[in-house]
Formats: sequence, structure tokens, C-alpha cells
Amino acid sequence: MGSGIGIGLLGLGTVGGGVASILQSPSERHPLVADLKLVRVAVRDLNRPRSVELPNEILTTDPAVVVNDPAVDVVVEVIGGIEPARSLILQAIAAGKSVVTANKAVIARHGEEIADAATKAGVYVLIEAAVGGGIPIIEPLKQSLGGNRINRVSGIINGTTNYILTRMAEEGAAYESVLKDAQELGYAEADPAADVDGLDAADKIAILANLAFGGSVERSAVPTAGISQLQGRDVDYAKQLGYGVKLLAVAERMKPSGEPLPLSLRVQPTLVPNDHPLAGVNGVNNAILVEGDPIGRVMFYGPGAGAGPTASAVVADILNIAGISQATQGDDRLDPLLAASSWRRCVLVDRGEIRQRHYVRFHTQDAPGVIGRIGGCFGDGGVSIQSIVQFNASKAGAEIVVITHEVSQKKMDDALQSIQALPEVSGLAAHLGCL
Amino acid sequence: MGSGIGIGLLGLGTVGGGVASILQSPSERHPLVADLKLVRVAVRDLNRPRSVELPNEILTTDPAVVVNDPAVDVVVEVIGGIEPARSLILQAIAAGKSVVTANKAVIARHGEEIADAATKAGVYVLIEAAVGGGIPIIEPLKQSLGGNRINRVSGIINGTTNYILTRMAEEGAAYESVLKDAQELGYAEADPAADVDGLDAADKIAILANLAFGGSVERSAVPTAGISQLQGRDVDYAKQLGYGVKLLAVAERMKPSGEPLPLSLRVQPTLVPNDHPLAGVNGVNNAILVEGDPIGRVMFYGPGAGAGPTASAVVADILNIAGISQATQGDDRLDPLLAASSWRRCVLVDRGEIRQRHYVRFHTQDAPGVIGRIGGCFGDGGVSIQSIVQFNASKAGAEIVVITHEVSQKKMDDALQSIQALPEVSGLAAHLGCL
Repeated sequence: MGSGIGIGLLGLGTVGGGVASILQSPSERHPLVADLKLVRVAVRDLNRPRSVELPNEILTTDPAVVVNDPAVDVVVEVIGGIEPARSLILQAIAAGKSVVTANKAVIARHGEEIADAATKAGVYVLIEAAVGGGIPIIEPLKQSLGGNRINRVSGIINGTTNYILTRMAEEGAAYESVLKDAQELGYAEADPAADVDGLDAADKIAILANLAFGGSVERSAVPTAGISQLQGRDVDYAKQLGYGVKLLAVAERMKPSGEPLPLSLRVQPTLVPNDHPLAGVNGVNNAILVEGDPIGRVMFYGPGAGAGPTASAVVADILNIAGISQATQGDDRLDPLLAASSWRRCVLVDRGEIRQRHYVRFHTQDAPGVIGRIGGCFGDGGVSIQSIVQFNASKAGAEIVVITHEVSQKKMDDALQSIQALPEVSGLAAHLGCL
Repeated sequence: MGSGIGIGLLGLGTVGGGVASILQSPSERHPLVADLKLVRVAVRDLNRPRSVELPNEILTTDPAVVVNDPAVDVVVEVIGGIEPARSLILQAIAAGKSVVTANKAVIARHGEEIADAATKAGVYVLIEAAVGGGIPIIEPLKQSLGGNRINRVSGIINGTTNYILTRMAEEGAAYESVLKDAQELGYAEADPAADVDGLDAADKIAILANLAFGGSVERSAVPTAGISQLQGRDVDYAKQLGYGVKLLAVAERMKPSGEPLPLSLRVQPTLVPNDHPLAGVNGVNNAILVEGDPIGRVMFYGPGAGAGPTASAVVADILNIAGISQATQGDDRLDPLLAASSWRRCVLVDRGEIRQRHYVRFHTQDAPGVIGRIGGCFGDGGVSIQSIVQFNASKAGAEIVVITHEVSQKKMDDALQSIQALPEVSGLAAHLGCL
């Protein structure tokens, strides 16, 4: 690469437009931004009106033209989706170009294939924008926290669901009505499944786990529950007990350690105590908490989505590649921190082995002794309880909410089965995680 | 450098011991940690018992031996204080070695001299541990946020004072008694001046401003107020009005922009609204909020001090140097992001031009019309008021608390002068900042 770095952009939607707009106005940003030249941009439709003005001759409808243009040093993929994004990334790598992508779906599913190809080709694939929007989290995990043994990464990493949960908590509103509002405001898609079912968060926690623990995990094996079944009354009961409800994604190492390293990953609505750093993360904001030895706990907080924040993360990656290419001057060796290929094998433990605290709500008869019976079943099953509270007792029945101490999923499931067999218990109405 | 990187440590106190302990147990950390070899350590007393065991032959009482040892590739300075730390850093640079330091006092005062020397010598001087303990903030500012125009950096960057303020707020305790406790617990030094007078925070905000805005500022010109004069009743009144009191350090660009870039820096006890991300930062924790375009607001939170967190930051810097040296293989060019020399001139505006919201408390007679007179003086002086509240009226007098909208310090000072001249006003009892 010369003193200017040629950038090829695949996609000129919200994020792509944000990136172009930063590159076109380098003033008052880091001076290296002025060295980045947008030389090729692939768009779907040449004639569509856009927020950024670009010379016609750099636009093309053929992404292969961008990938193969010798003037392009770094390919920025902001098309989204699995294909053709994956193939284009691999083609760019094969052409000896470093890649910057915001594509969490591709990285969560094909990250290993892409990383292997990049290592062979001696190029970087940087993904800061794939998790947490503008929040610097990928690079801190790869570089700033490298001296630590990471024990746990947890976070609120989907802005849409956090917006919905925040409004449910603040207004006591029902899920469906807030979702409708969120769709009208553009915070949720017409088909909200990827967000509300937790799939987007599962992609992101799989990526974070890979970086934090040094090995890739099977994306499809991440236990994932969304918020579409969440009832307002559980948000309300949680509030009365001193908790907020968040869609939490967690990746933690199991003890004892081993080879491959056993990890527990999960995405589920989770009670977060009011004094926990993640409790105050509201609206479309994201936050990621990293726990390690010897650092203790650090948290990264900010806007989890949007054109500006995501573009900021994409440009950060481009700058990193530009900076290191100025230092190496065409040398093909990679900075092992930035390259961040996997360095050990990790394996997800079975769902039954996952250990955490639980929140459960039962419909019961309003009969004396029910609480005792439920408590007894938990005790017999080796599940110790932090609190058990009866809400809303009436002739129609009562609701009993239990918060447990940390216990394995298997013991919890067994205890729940025996409780549901009690004649006084008419059903398990809710089952959430709890920090 | 070969495949192993030789580390020379200046100082084996709390932080130095923490660094040694990470280097001695690389297992389960980033694999690059295993390439770091501790080859020389300067200590004050060879015979002192230590928490880490080191071979006697690598210990020396002469720091020059560490700096000049050809086996040392990176010098880690964790002695603290201005001299001999500054000279040793410059000697290491002159010997062609990169330097990692946790020394905010040296960097805030001699950062430009050191950066210039490093640029000439083609080496890095990395300072992640100088601000925010283990929180990654230096590197995100240098690398991950480089695409942004930074508008403002603000934060709670002194753990001792935040611990004291947290306890004052939670227990309604007086400053002196909490300080005494903090000293007994080891959270405050026997001579607490550097912390409680805001000097430590001023060092750190000067460093952050340099990185965020690209130019160094005159450390001695940073307006600085500490917490030693803070009264419990102001913490209490603030609470009643929906605020917490934090020792806040702020660096922001002034409008209109210019060349050199006008900046406002300040350290002072400041009211923070309860729903602000910094409000929940309690105890010895630190947090830094960065505001920029297009990212919006991101916050970095974590332990602001302590052996483990600070050692984590030191090792992060060593890893960065090790990583890039593997990529460049002895090439002398620097990564301009990591090198982070200044790239424009900045200048601090006069104190009178600093614009912010203010909290003031007056002792007054409990006479009708006092609030009107005070409000009138503010209005005449062009200071618009958000709220004016009377507390504690009695025969002995009343206390009137005013929170203003944003206004220049000069207008505020003028208005305060005319208010203090009112016969009903017996004094200005408190004057804090307000977010």
C-alpha cells in the first residue's frame, strides 16, 4: 500500500453511507482518516438518491469489481446477510485484501473459515462493528484485555429488545403494544424475529466468546430464548423485588477448566439487580461487562446501533489496518493481537450443566402450605432458594415467585417437574434467568 | 527483537508485582503473554520480602542497569513520581527501547518532551495504566474512536474521592470522618492532597484531552477544585434535587472551533443527574464518558486503581508493542495510531470563558423577597436559572440553592458578586458545577 489507503465499499445503505460520510470529511478527525480514499463502491441501484454525494465513476452494481480492483486495499462489507456477503469476503481475502465487516451473522457462522483464509493470505479481517454498534469492545477484548484470564462476558447486546424492555418497565406496557410502537419508530423491523427471539444477540455472544476465550463455538448450539413470551407482570414482579429484566447474553468459562475449554453460553430474559452496572442500561443502548483476572470487572457502554455509531466502528477498523500497514510497509507478517485467530479449542457444555440463578413463577391454588410444598420440592432437588413470595392471592388462585441461588439447569428442570406434579400447582407461568 | 520480548521492570511495588505475577503465569491468557520474558527488575531493596518470587540474578538496585541491558526490549516504569522516572523514561527511549508507564504525573507534565523523543527514536511510549486503572480508555481514544470528532471527554477518574463521595451520599457522613476511614482502609494516602484536592484527576484529564483532541495542554492551567471543602449538606440538597455529587473532570472543545483548538478543561465537584450514565459509578470505580461525532456517547467503566487492574493495563501495552514488533520485525516505522504524537495545537480558554451549569448555595436572612432579589440579580447578569429552592428556613436565616442553565464563568462570577452585595445575603456557602 502507498501512503493513501484505497477503500472499497460493498453496500451504501445506512452504515455504508455513514462510512462514506466520515471519509469525505476528515477534518478534525485523526489525521490518518485523510489518507483513506474511497475508490470503489458497490450499490444495488445506480440511480437511487443518496445522502452522500459520490462521483459516478466509482459506483458499480457489481461487487466483484470492488473486490478485484487493484486500487482497493481494504474491502468494507456492509451488505449484511449470509450470502453473497460470505463469498465476497472470501474473494477479497483471496485477492490479498484486508476486510472490515459489520456482519455478525456471517462472522458468528463462518468466522473460523474466514479467519483461516485470512491467516493464510496474511490479511486482517476486523469486526468491531459486528457487536455493540459504536462501542469499542472487539478491540479491547483482542488487545487491551489480553493480559487477563477472562472468566465471563455478559451484556445487553440487542438494542431493539432493550428498547422494548425499557418501555415495558417504565410504562407497565404490554410486549405487543411496545413492539408495534418500536416498529413504527424504526427501532424494530417489520419481521422482528431476529431481534425479539434473541438470534441477533446469540450471534453476537458467540463472536464475543470466541475473542474472550480464544476459540470458536458452535453458533447453533447456543441456548437462546427471546422476549416475545415475556409477560408484563413478570417485569412488574421483578421490579417489586429490586430487579430489572434485560435480554442478557452470557458467555462464561466452567469450572473445572479443561481442554477443550468448557464454556456456558446463553441468551435469555434475565433479572438484573438494580445496583448491578448493567441495570441502568436503558433504551437502545448496549453494554458489555467483561470479568477477568486480574482486572476485575470492566464495562463498555454506548449506542448499540445506528448509522453513526456503526460507521465509527467500521472506520476504527480501517484506521487500524491503515496504521499498521504504514508501520509494516508491505511486510506480510500480521500483528497476532489484531489478527486474533483462535488459539485454543472451546466447547459448549450441555444445557443441563449450565449454572445460574433462576426466576420462576407458578400459578397455584391459594391454599395453605403451597409455599412450603414448593420450597420442599426445591430442597429435595438440591435447589436452594433465595426468596419465595406470593403475589395476587385470590379465589382464582395465587402466583408464587421463586428466585433461586445458583444451580445447574438439570437440577432446576428436575425440581420444576416435581413441583408441576403437585396438585396445588396449576402451572409454570414464567421461567427467566437471574443475575 | 527476537521471538521473545525482553521486559525490564523499574519498580516492584504493588503494580510492578502485579505485572510480574501476570508474566509468570501466562497460562489461559493471550498466547503472546508467554513470549514476554522478565529479564531485569530494579528494586529499592534487594532483601525486602515480596509477593512474587524472582531469580536473584535479575534483580538490581540500579535502574540504569535495566534501561541499558541489551536484553531489555521494553522498559516498564512503575516507580511513580516525577524524578527519577522522567529521566529513566528518556534514557530508555534514547537507548532505542519502547516504554510502558503508569505514571500520570510525568506524562501530564512532560508528555510532549517524551513523545517527541519517542518519535525521533522510533519507539512507542504507551500509557494505558496512567488513566482509569484497568479500564481500557487510552487505546480506545487512540484507535477505536479515531474516526470521530471528539467533542467532550468527562469522567470520574479518581477512585479515592469517589469512594469518599459515595459514602458521604449513602451515609450522610461528613467529609473528615469518611476520609479518616478511607485512610485506615488504604483507599486514601496519609497525605491525601493529590487525590482530594483534585490534582490527580487534573493530571489525568490533561492526558485524556491530549489524546482526544490531538494536542497537549498546559497542565498547570487546568482549573482544579477538590472535595476537601465539600459539605455534607450540599450532597444532601443535591440528592433532594435528583442529583449525585461527583468529582468530575471535563475536557471539551469550545465553539466556535479555531486554530489552535480552544478547549475547556476543569476538575471540580459536580452535580450529576440521577439518570446520567456517570451517576451510578460508585465506590473506587472510575468511568469515562466520550462524546463525539458520529458515535454519540460511549462510556468506559471499571476499577480505577489497584494492583490487578493497573497491571492488566500495563500488560496490555506490552502486548501491543510485542504484537506490532512481530509484524514489523525490526522495521523502525511506527504505527501512527499507536504512536499517537500530537497532530494539532490546542489551547486552554481563560477560566472566565468556561461554560457550564452551576450549583450555588447562599446563606440569607429568612426575609420575604430574597428569592426574588437573587433571581433578579441572576437575570440582570444574563444568567438563566433552572431552579431556585429555599432550604432550612429558621430565625437564624435560610439557605437558598440555585441551579443555573449553562453560562460562562465570567457572567456567573459577576452575578455572584452583585448577589453577595445584597443586604439580605450573608454569604456564598457553596459553589459546585452541574451537568
